Amino acid sequence: MAHIQLNDENLPGIIGLLHYSPQTAKPLNELAEVLLVEDSTLTRAERELIASSVSHWNDCHFCHTSHGAAAAALMEQPVSLLTDIKNGLQQTEVSPKMRALLDIAKQVQKGGKHVTTSHIEKAREEGATDKEIHDAVLIAAAFCMYNRYVDGLATWAPEEDQAFMPIGEMLAQNGYTASTPVI
Amino acid sequence: MAHIQLNDENLPGIIGLLHYSPQTAKPLNELAEVLLVEDSTLTRAERELIASSVSHWNDCHFCHTSHGAAAAALMEQPVSLLTDIKNGLQQTEVSPKMRALLDIAKQVQKGGKHVTTSHIEKAREEGATDKEIHDAVLIAAAFCMYNRYVDGLATWAPEEDQAFMPIGEMLAQNGYTASTPVI
Repeated sequence: MAHIQLNDENLPGIIGLLHYSPQTAKPLNELAEVLLVEDSTLTRAERELIASSVSHWNDCHFCHTSHGAAAAALMEQPVSLLTDIKNGLQQTEVSPKMRALLDIAKQVQKGGKHVTTSHIEKAREEGATDKEIHDAVLIAAAFCMYNRYVDGLATWAPEEDQAFMPIGEMLAQNGYTASTPVI
Repeated sequence: MAHIQLNDENLPGIIGLLHYSPQTAKPLNELAEVLLVEDSTLTRAERELIASSVSHWNDCHFCHTSHGAAAAALMEQPVSLLTDIKNGLQQTEVSPKMRALLDIAKQVQKGGKHVTTSHIEKAREEGATDKEIHDAVLIAAAFCMYNRYVDGLATWAPEEDQAFMPIGEMLAQNGYTASTPVI
């Protein structure tokens, strides 16, 4: 049971919180929409892989699986992608640029000052633009927020990865603002 | 120098980033406005104290000092408040409810799962409502994002606390959306 009394205890993870607090839900949804859905030179799947990986490093089951499921839907991959994200994407084809951006995201998860000039230079060598580096840092930082919001209030979530696949399909199809209308 | 080429390198901390990326600046500013400025049963100063404390625990100089300066402006306190925030507010009068909410924020900074039922019960005993607990968790979580954004891209900031006092006055007077127009 969540630490606070939600309007609807059946809504899992952040969804229950977005309904509990529509004033904060609006910018939280808009931020996810801009970072993960709107036009970017990073594919939507690449951005969901960063979101899901950071959520795994923060031990946030709801966010890891829901964004992993969104990546799986976008990449037409089976549910096993979620386990591969936990294992550092050993089985999944990922570009050297994405590996370098994931490494930056891993540093951000530990703390902003862990990102060094050498991490940035490596990403540049692999072809990352300044905007892509900016976006990777902000996606990682944003999930350090979403993860803490979801777990800091002890929200409920289904245990099984498979249960998240329809959520992933919905996010892939409709994005964030449309999937969680709150006002 | 920041890790990426900003439009204006003279703009400190998150301000340079908000100008670099107006698409993300909009929800980032709106979130700060809702959490720190709009109506709440927590005073604006109390919310800025949570923001500044979390930023100190995350070792983010720009955010600690700018939000500490906003708290100082709202509380009509001198620049020494910023040092007292670093020291756990030993010299500043803070209610038992706020101490309990700051303790919750401290757990959130470490990771969402560090918040336990006993932290929540303590806050309730001191009179905190569910909404106040929600807001304390989300403010702390949000600053785990803002801090990582600011430091993960190695933005510049003035060293001296005193240099932030005009920023604090501006934030106290105008809030966030109006202080950093980006579009």
